[in-house]
Amino acid sequence: MKPYVIGLDLGGTNSVFGIVDSRGEIKATTAIKTQGYDKVEDYVDASVEALQIIIEQVGGIDKIKAMGIGAPNGNYYKGTIEFAPNLAWGHNGVVPLAKLFSDRLGIPVALTNDANAAAIGEMTYGVARGMKNFIVITLGTGVGSGIVINGQLVYGCDGFAGELGHVIMKRENGRPCGCGRKGCLEAYCSATGVARSARELLATTERPSLLRDLNPEDITSLDVAIAAGKGDELANEVFQFTGEMLGAACADFAAFSSPEAFIFFGGLVKSGDLIMNPIKESYERNVLNIFKGKAKFLISGLDGASAAVLGASAIGWEI
Amino acid sequence: MKPYVIGLDLGGTNSVFGIVDSRGEIKATTAIKTQGYDKVEDYVDASVEALQIIIEQVGGIDKIKAMGIGAPNGNYYKGTIEFAPNLAWGHNGVVPLAKLFSDRLGIPVALTNDANAAAIGEMTYGVARGMKNFIVITLGTGVGSGIVINGQLVYGCDGFAGELGHVIMKRENGRPCGCGRKGCLEAYCSATGVARSARELLATTERPSLLRDLNPEDITSLDVAIAAGKGDELANEVFQFTGEMLGAACADFAAFSSPEAFIFFGGLVKSGDLIMNPIKESYERNVLNIFKGKAKFLISGLDGASAAVLGASAIGWEI
Repeated sequence: MKPYVIGLDLGGTNSVFGIVDSRGEIKATTAIKTQGYDKVEDYVDASVEALQIIIEQVGGIDKIKAMGIGAPNGNYYKGTIEFAPNLAWGHNGVVPLAKLFSDRLGIPVALTNDANAAAIGEMTYGVARGMKNFIVITLGTGVGSGIVINGQLVYGCDGFAGELGHVIMKRENGRPCGCGRKGCLEAYCSATGVARSARELLATTERPSLLRDLNPEDITSLDVAIAAGKGDELANEVFQFTGEMLGAACADFAAFSSPEAFIFFGGLVKSGDLIMNPIKESYERNVLNIFKGKAKFLISGLDGASAAVLGASAIGWEI
Repeated sequence: MKPYVIGLDLGGTNSVFGIVDSRGEIKATTAIKTQGYDKVEDYVDASVEALQIIIEQVGGIDKIKAMGIGAPNGNYYKGTIEFAPNLAWGHNGVVPLAKLFSDRLGIPVALTNDANAAAIGEMTYGVARGMKNFIVITLGTGVGSGIVINGQLVYGCDGFAGELGHVIMKRENGRPCGCGRKGCLEAYCSATGVARSARELLATTERPSLLRDLNPEDITSLDVAIAAGKGDELANEVFQFTGEMLGAACADFAAFSSPEAFIFFGGLVKSGDLIMNPIKESYERNVLNIFKGKAKFLISGLDGASAAVLGASAIGWEI
């Protein structure tokens, strides 16, 4: 049995590669810039060149079962990246990235979006080991999700299922979302949504806040978290509002798939109880009676720095 | 191979049994009253007595592979009916109905709620044959749902997944729902919700309508459909409103599981285009770009009178 898989966390800025064993231990790692290539073939060439070095470190390609890629707009069924707005070599078409890597490396390659990769990562190495029904919600620049039902990731009829950041939470006067619609969960509960909630509260009230020392346009979710940690009332209210909306959204998700756990992942989760407590309280208050007290609310069990690579690598074991 | 399964559609008033072949043809049928039994054992005795006759008609119990039951508050994992409010012998506890029938008949018995039974029925005999990802939405006294992902019905961690009638569509000033919460899809889009929308519109406006000839308290969704069919503007507006909300809800469901089709079932569906057109238009207007134009909107392919029995019987083939 081949002992390793390769994981690629393909981000807008960096592409991080890791070679991982079945217990989730990263044996070797390398990285290249994602940008600076006009053609995807050039990007794959640079990747394979960097990979050769760490592949040799673990004993050669014969030791490697497969490769998994977590990438924006990744389509699992086709192994493609489709119209990814942040990738110079992938923004205006369909890029068969899995096939390109597979042809060069001679091993099977599968690809999915980063939130799905996180969900498989949790199931393989993290807090969802042994679970058959759970939902991972990633709170980062956007709000992503990976849904597992009956032990399988939900890809839907087209490979694009699991876009829970884009369920509508406010049908009237909703905030504009990056997707072109209004009132999406992501418009409120992403890191950018949290910063925006703080700016709105600062602009529409006279209430004192540590955040008033900052230029409103520069406020980030981290600033809000730091202020809240210092007991700032306005900043705490922003987290309360964000958590309440996430809890109400999870109550609707329970009506769909009744998961054993909701697992939160990403920058905002570093705020711990500040965000998790309002989520749990709001969930229990909003959920249908039959589901009350059943679901666990967990924080990702994957190490932050390497979580995305681990998640991507986990897809390799599924092939 | 045994050629038949038994289906039981367990309703609040009647319990209808059918013996069905693999093509969905009902070979024999019988029925008893659901009520009038203090103990579940008496209900099962009466059922088995009625069943014996039709079992003999098809050549005896050796011809029968299994039995499927569609019942309110049915739990597939446990084979139980749990706290069913409308059943005298089942309203204050957990009734192991599948085991009771299995012990008496000597065949495997499985049980689920009626909307899940409808979904398996569509997959086995109806318009969802060959589909791996679809959602059945039942529009009756309530709004129920059966969700199929990767060819499997979604039961969730506890057997109660697929309660899409209870996602919240109106978070402010929502209508009270039978579940004790406010703003649920069911409160607006069930048959009773449609009648209520008509009554509200009659009470809050002076607009002319054929429905003004009726005692407001007696108006049913059928009355609204008949008036709309005659070109009544107010009644048409009620169907428009109902369809728009269903379409917006389906747009959120697409973000969850990206189904190939939404299949509608139940009394309201008899209104045809009157309800289906606003659903489709609203869905395409509300859904995330990536899903536009992909999902089919279908009406149940099961014969109305026997649909529930067929659905229940289909669970028998899955055991």
